[in-house]
Amino acid sequence: MRKELNKNRAYRLVTSGNLVLVTSSYKDRDNIITCSWQIPFSHSPSGLLIALAKRHLSSEFVRKTQEFVINIPDFSLIKEVIFCGTCSGRDYDKFKETNLTKEKAKVLVKTPRIKECIGVIECGLSDIKEAGDHYIFFSEPLYSEVEEGLFDFENFVWKESADLIFHLGGEFFSCLGKVEKVIL
Amino acid sequence: MRKELNKNRAYRLVTSGNLVLVTSSYKDRDNIITCSWQIPFSHSPSGLLIALAKRHLSSEFVRKTQEFVINIPDFSLIKEVIFCGTCSGRDYDKFKETNLTKEKAKVLVKTPRIKECIGVIECGLSDIKEAGDHYIFFSEPLYSEVEEGLFDFENFVWKESADLIFHLGGEFFSCLGKVEKVIL
Repeated sequence: MRKELNKNRAYRLVTSGNLVLVTSSYKDRDNIITCSWQIPFSHSPSGLLIALAKRHLSSEFVRKTQEFVINIPDFSLIKEVIFCGTCSGRDYDKFKETNLTKEKAKVLVKTPRIKECIGVIECGLSDIKEAGDHYIFFSEPLYSEVEEGLFDFENFVWKESADLIFHLGGEFFSCLGKVEKVIL
Repeated sequence: MRKELNKNRAYRLVTSGNLVLVTSSYKDRDNIITCSWQIPFSHSPSGLLIALAKRHLSSEFVRKTQEFVINIPDFSLIKEVIFCGTCSGRDYDKFKETNLTKEKAKVLVKTPRIKECIGVIECGLSDIKEAGDHYIFFSEPLYSEVEEGLFDFENFVWKESADLIFHLGGEFFSCLGKVEKVIL
């Protein structure tokens, strides 16, 4: 069961560099793309950015609809993650192919969230920058939820049991290692 | 012993989201700052970006000198990482306080690399964008090296034995988990 996480703390869901699934929408079509190039970029105001290749359908959708959802998968979704990262939404209805379930967003009007994900951040686009062969999409987190048992609501960090995915490159992935509290 | 890594593959040293130490320099002063908000942003041309708070001395140095080095620490340097992430270069000579060793860069003229790190990427600044309370520094990787025994030069990914650091937030850190090759 997911619980609301203050939107200004939402960056803690992605700050460790874990890979995410970005959902976007345009007219009657929804799309999912795997993204590991995402970071928070500001504390006050709170900001999150993602880099998506210009050629991607998701880039077109985000530019048009000005919103997207960052969905955080765990390792149980690795096959869906790879499918969404290697196939194009121009060729496939990725929700249909992966059997991932659309969930109505709380704040966003058009873009669905992914029910099977352990965390979600609904994002409103604030700026776009062209950079090389990618667009950088700057956004404001508007609403966020995280799986209650997998997140430490006292320290605002993932627990070790959250089986986050990290992409090392190509076909190589890693899970979250041992979590340690380190004080000097 | 570090070995040269093709600069167009350098992004593989940071793409998993592992935390880095950024070195910068201005006149006769060198500085180190811990950064976990860094991603590749383009394949062709190859590009890497880092987000640093505007108030940081390192931001001032990078703006002035137009270059920086991304140094990749492993978990054996966790104390140095925390020191460089919590103390200011305005108050401390961080190289002196941490006993980290300056190493002359191969391509950059002014900025030193950190000898104890398992990977380094020398970066030339290509663009700056103000975003919230941070600057986004866009850069081109100019030269890179990685510890030979810790990197898979066939697949261009870190080996599991590279004890990379991931920052979950606050005082909480994680190492790299089990590395898996996953094919659909």
